[in-house]
Amino acid sequence: MLNNPTLTRLRQLALTASLLAASLQIWACGPARVASSPAEGEWNNLSPGICRIESGPDKTPSLLDTAGVIPRMQKLIKLPETSFPVDESEISIRIDGGQTYLRFPLEDEEQLFGLGLNFKHVNQRGRIFRLHMDHYGGRDNGRTHAPVPFVLSSKGYGILIDSPRYITVYAGTGVTRDSNHPAVPRDRNTDRNWTPRPRSDNLEVVIPGEYARVFLFAGTNMMDCVRRYNLFCGGGFIPPKWGLGFWQRTPTLFSEEDVKKEVAEFAERDFPLDVIGLEPGWHSKSYPCTFSWDSGRFPDPAGFIKQMKNQGINLNLWMNPYVSPDSPIYSEILPYSGSHTVWNGLVADYTIPEAAEIFKGHIEKELTGIGISGFKVDETDGFDHWLWPDTAVFPSGTSGEQMRQTYGLRVLRLIDEVYRDAGQRTYGLTRASNAGGVRLPYVLYNDYYSHRDFITALINSGFNGVLWTPEVRSGGSAEDWVRRMQTVCFSPLAMINAWADGTKPWSYPEVYEECQEAAYLRMQLLPYIYSVFADYYFNGTPPFYALNLLEDFYNTTVPTAGKPADTGKSELDSTANPYSERTREEIRDQYMFGPSIMVAPLFAGEEERDVFLPNGDWYDFYTGRHAGRAQTVRVKPGLGRIPVFVRDGAIIPMLKNRLRQTSEWKDVPLEVRVYGKGEGSFLLYDDDGKSYEYQEGEYSSRMLSTKLDNTGNLSGGVEELVSDSTWPYPEITWKYMTGSQAGKE
Amino acid sequence: MLNNPTLTRLRQLALTASLLAASLQIWACGPARVASSPAEGEWNNLSPGICRIESGPDKTPSLLDTAGVIPRMQKLIKLPETSFPVDESEISIRIDGGQTYLRFPLEDEEQLFGLGLNFKHVNQRGRIFRLHMDHYGGRDNGRTHAPVPFVLSSKGYGILIDSPRYITVYAGTGVTRDSNHPAVPRDRNTDRNWTPRPRSDNLEVVIPGEYARVFLFAGTNMMDCVRRYNLFCGGGFIPPKWGLGFWQRTPTLFSEEDVKKEVAEFAERDFPLDVIGLEPGWHSKSYPCTFSWDSGRFPDPAGFIKQMKNQGINLNLWMNPYVSPDSPIYSEILPYSGSHTVWNGLVADYTIPEAAEIFKGHIEKELTGIGISGFKVDETDGFDHWLWPDTAVFPSGTSGEQMRQTYGLRVLRLIDEVYRDAGQRTYGLTRASNAGGVRLPYVLYNDYYSHRDFITALINSGFNGVLWTPEVRSGGSAEDWVRRMQTVCFSPLAMINAWADGTKPWSYPEVYEECQEAAYLRMQLLPYIYSVFADYYFNGTPPFYALNLLEDFYNTTVPTAGKPADTGKSELDSTANPYSERTREEIRDQYMFGPSIMVAPLFAGEEERDVFLPNGDWYDFYTGRHAGRAQTVRVKPGLGRIPVFVRDGAIIPMLKNRLRQTSEWKDVPLEVRVYGKGEGSFLLYDDDGKSYEYQEGEYSSRMLSTKLDNTGNLSGGVEELVSDSTWPYPEITWKYMTGSQAGKE
Repeated sequence: MLNNPTLTRLRQLALTASLLAASLQIWACGPARVASSPAEGEWNNLSPGICRIESGPDKTPSLLDTAGVIPRMQKLIKLPETSFPVDESEISIRIDGGQTYLRFPLEDEEQLFGLGLNFKHVNQRGRIFRLHMDHYGGRDNGRTHAPVPFVLSSKGYGILIDSPRYITVYAGTGVTRDSNHPAVPRDRNTDRNWTPRPRSDNLEVVIPGEYARVFLFAGTNMMDCVRRYNLFCGGGFIPPKWGLGFWQRTPTLFSEEDVKKEVAEFAERDFPLDVIGLEPGWHSKSYPCTFSWDSGRFPDPAGFIKQMKNQGINLNLWMNPYVSPDSPIYSEILPYSGSHTVWNGLVADYTIPEAAEIFKGHIEKELTGIGISGFKVDETDGFDHWLWPDTAVFPSGTSGEQMRQTYGLRVLRLIDEVYRDAGQRTYGLTRASNAGGVRLPYVLYNDYYSHRDFITALINSGFNGVLWTPEVRSGGSAEDWVRRMQTVCFSPLAMINAWADGTKPWSYPEVYEECQEAAYLRMQLLPYIYSVFADYYFNGTPPFYALNLLEDFYNTTVPTAGKPADTGKSELDSTANPYSERTREEIRDQYMFGPSIMVAPLFAGEEERDVFLPNGDWYDFYTGRHAGRAQTVRVKPGLGRIPVFVRDGAIIPMLKNRLRQTSEWKDVPLEVRVYGKGEGSFLLYDDDGKSYEYQEGEYSSRMLSTKLDNTGNLSGGVEELVSDSTWPYPEITWKYMTGSQAGKE
Repeated sequence: MLNNPTLTRLRQLALTASLLAASLQIWACGPARVASSPAEGEWNNLSPGICRIESGPDKTPSLLDTAGVIPRMQKLIKLPETSFPVDESEISIRIDGGQTYLRFPLEDEEQLFGLGLNFKHVNQRGRIFRLHMDHYGGRDNGRTHAPVPFVLSSKGYGILIDSPRYITVYAGTGVTRDSNHPAVPRDRNTDRNWTPRPRSDNLEVVIPGEYARVFLFAGTNMMDCVRRYNLFCGGGFIPPKWGLGFWQRTPTLFSEEDVKKEVAEFAERDFPLDVIGLEPGWHSKSYPCTFSWDSGRFPDPAGFIKQMKNQGINLNLWMNPYVSPDSPIYSEILPYSGSHTVWNGLVADYTIPEAAEIFKGHIEKELTGIGISGFKVDETDGFDHWLWPDTAVFPSGTSGEQMRQTYGLRVLRLIDEVYRDAGQRTYGLTRASNAGGVRLPYVLYNDYYSHRDFITALINSGFNGVLWTPEVRSGGSAEDWVRRMQTVCFSPLAMINAWADGTKPWSYPEVYEECQEAAYLRMQLLPYIYSVFADYYFNGTPPFYALNLLEDFYNTTVPTAGKPADTGKSELDSTANPYSERTREEIRDQYMFGPSIMVAPLFAGEEERDVFLPNGDWYDFYTGRHAGRAQTVRVKPGLGRIPVFVRDGAIIPMLKNRLRQTSEWKDVPLEVRVYGKGEGSFLLYDDDGKSYEYQEGEYSSRMLSTKLDNTGNLSGGVEELVSDSTWPYPEITWKYMTGSQAGKE
């Protein structure tokens, strides 16, 4: 938790900054200051609030092109004009000695977000990143599953450095001698205000190679910048409906028969289940993979898949993309492969169309064509000692480094093409993404498994155009198990991954009912969740995001509530803290889920926790009772509930009944919960749940809204905006959760 | 501890490798395989066993030139010819897309050492490093105080990549598709021998930029390669005699009067003391520094220094090299400074002679000229967020990256020049060194403070041409304190650094006598230690080194002694070890000190420990009793002793009396201890202890040797080899420590 005086100060300054920003010039894309450069660049206006500069002779491929991004220009050109809150004469691009150096100005209390999927911190100012695709290693240093070179400023702009290189970013650390905003020299001998980090007024970047391609995104606020960034990357996506149900990944070497028993047990124990994920063992060989069925464990894949479909179960297949010598595609793909192998498997160069076609043709024929609903693409992130070194050579001429930054994206793109060609949506898992991955229907995961850090990753995913699942594998205790089960049900992909541990929802029988409750709550929330994803596709709004993206966040003044002030200093210790460095606090354990819901998970070992409530009234999701406004509250909800809060005026459409599978999600009554005392609205969305026809306009939507009458009571109304034949809610009930109306329907 | 079956296997294979090597061609420096390169290079033979290749158009400065290295060619050309145990047609250099790629072949059980001052591991094969000057951050990944691009192979050769860039080294991780030694593909589904790390047969390197300058060093064994490498870098050095006495660094803001009291207390309590180190507070301002005295705390520096000298005390001054706006040299050095500041201090560009002269002139005038004996140069390593970013620009055109890799070296070189010009030796501390630093009389230290990892650093220092002190700051307990005091007394620099904690040797009164004992033991060992350093200067032999450099190490067959075998697998765990990765063991807590002494420190919490004794007989240093041979023994020496072992035939010259200060080290009786039953010899060295005249031949040396008579008894003899007027030992006593002769003098 951010402590309060700091928060207040930050908010005040952010306000000042945004007032200042409004008075600056409308974004005019003139020439940037380009020093000692063999090639000069100019800013090009691409659409309102989006601008690009290219500089340097040595065109490296674009990260966005690699991802196959087609910017959603039709949407973008309609957005309002906006001013860019940075003096562009203070931006510099310099090319020197084989490297490209960028510099952007920073104001004193400006905060920076994004810069890859970080797990420890939300505000990245003062940190240094070398963006490098890798398994997250416990430090926010740029090595992560989505080393996205996008940085978002609290001043209301974003910068994308569109390069698949290992980019180094100094996010407000360097102090220059000739600064316009010089830092104050201090004597550590005697001055107690000495700090090891004097004020830095810049964000500096090193791109290896002599080329820069940089995009700037402005907006009316931070969220607006994120939306423009996401839309520019092709927008978000709407998962197939089954993808939002519950997933269970079975242990390695599970056979057809094992899976059938597992599915039956879920039904018997009345636990939601939409997807079974098969882990290593369905391939005839794995690590590297054959991409062909093991005929012993799966004698009749097509029949088995059909049987599962009939029971409402979709199958997802684990794979790593490295081609086993025993794969049927091995010899065909060999000439298109890199110099180095991974676990002795080929690393195919999928920038070559022939290689891409071999892979796509094979999975279409053997897997997707017989009904496999999607994939989990493993091992495209790291570690360095598993994957090819940067010395690797690929037949297309793509370097080892560039291939490393983008291999995950490439593979996802191939699979996406197969499903798109079939007109069928997919939803899957990946361990690697990057800028441009926004439009690809995949959720990131890893082996790191810190519950608390998983929540920070969920928060940061929203700044980076990716999704993240805090998947559940094992539990240190029944308490840990239920707390993890609760958070995963409030994430983009609710899943147990039992590949190594063989866990099941009932692994801790003493908390089974609590787990069941969390899973069914997710199922009931499907209308809300599905609409949240529609907003991701149509408007680029991230489904999961930091509280910092709420407009009211920086305006909130929280009473100090007896907390110690941040003195900016810690105790001197010769070894633990020889620079008496200040420790910073921030909100890294609460996140927004859609427009109205805020989740504040509990972690094993905690019976209660503090929850920060920004400006505006907030209500308890379960009871509708007023929880507070602009304050920190302490909650102690018991094992059965994850703390969830709802904004005033929130309208949360839910399924009235408990459905165990999304296949039952048609012709069902809808219950619309209304929270608080203010008017509100919510765009309820639906479509066929499986095809891409929604992208051609085939969907339905209803505007749910509430109005205050003379007596101060709310009443709900429905307005049909777009309709197709699939609208699943024959009946809508309004349920008022708060105040004198509570309990009334 | 390496477990035994593995050790045995490694040794067998190393033997095979060295036999193979002997049968390979004499090193003929023909053209290397240089693929897709705009410039081809050829190997040039520089001296027996040393060869260089240069390739690429884009000459970056040399690391060795930056350090001011003058190879000791007169020594090197006299060394025997040697074969180079690598098939040179398997070495490749490729320049592509702005980067340079190197590849060297590796045999199956070849081990690799060096690659910077690592703290966790000794054998670096299978690891990946990006060599980057930084404060060590707890991981052996290339970020360290001496990111030396030198790798030593157990096959008996070394490679130096002489570049001040961030070099990436894949030390046996990459597996290539077209390998001559292909790895075996395995199916993780069912093959229990599947490993996440298939056999790699190469060492691969990425150098940013289009230029490679590579040296190869061969020798008759690994130690011989290290010696040639050290001599090529200008050789080691002999510290001034006072440098080998005991050091105490006083707390920050200590005044003249405080220091005088401290010195008096050391005398009163009878604790050795040769050097007082002044920490922040002697400068008028620090962080950044003025390099001028604070007249309040030090009203009469020259008088104070003289007074200290009269009491046998030398003064060492802490500094960081960043120039305060209040320094007298600020405005003069401003035009020669980099774009970025450190704590608002200037970062002077000392590659520019004018800047170097300003700094040298100032410290000569204010500090060295009035008798300051040396410096501790702090803050030249990291962290990234303290120092200048890679975007920094320097007036000479040196890049921020290159400046970072070499700034420490540069500053040490300046100070070294001041003392050399005065004909006076210095000895000091630094937090940054690099290849080429061998000749500079500095010892590395840091803030990391893991006692166990400090020992591994001491071991690894010997592979990297640097020295390391496990300096003592604080103690977690009396036991921790005494264990640390013992090891620091068996290191190149015996010091308490009380800058923040105010500790003194008597901080834990219950172990004061044990600490005193350790310090006096070091003082008694001075004749041995000084001779060990002479071997560093004359022959390049590192004073402190790994057991792996003992010729007998790989020949030793250790009985398994009931230890579990290394199965090469660990338990599968979905989160802690999802790849069931094998854990490797090695000897990282025992080190050699000179030719005869092996130290096996104890750490807090241990009352006893295992000690690995290689081939040949080993004896207890204290008792002379036989300790074992080719075996692992368990020792439990009590708090008062650090386990120390001596090789058979060892001759250890010691001072007979306990001297508290090196100023007393003249006209004193010498006691020569003889261990074991075999004949031996030791070259006892002496000189004036303070000037550089030893480099002009002004020194004395005596060959001490023992001979066996008919009855199996040893008798010692002395042969005068070189003499000058300062020989300090009017009287030599032989003391036989072992067997029936024990106790006889």
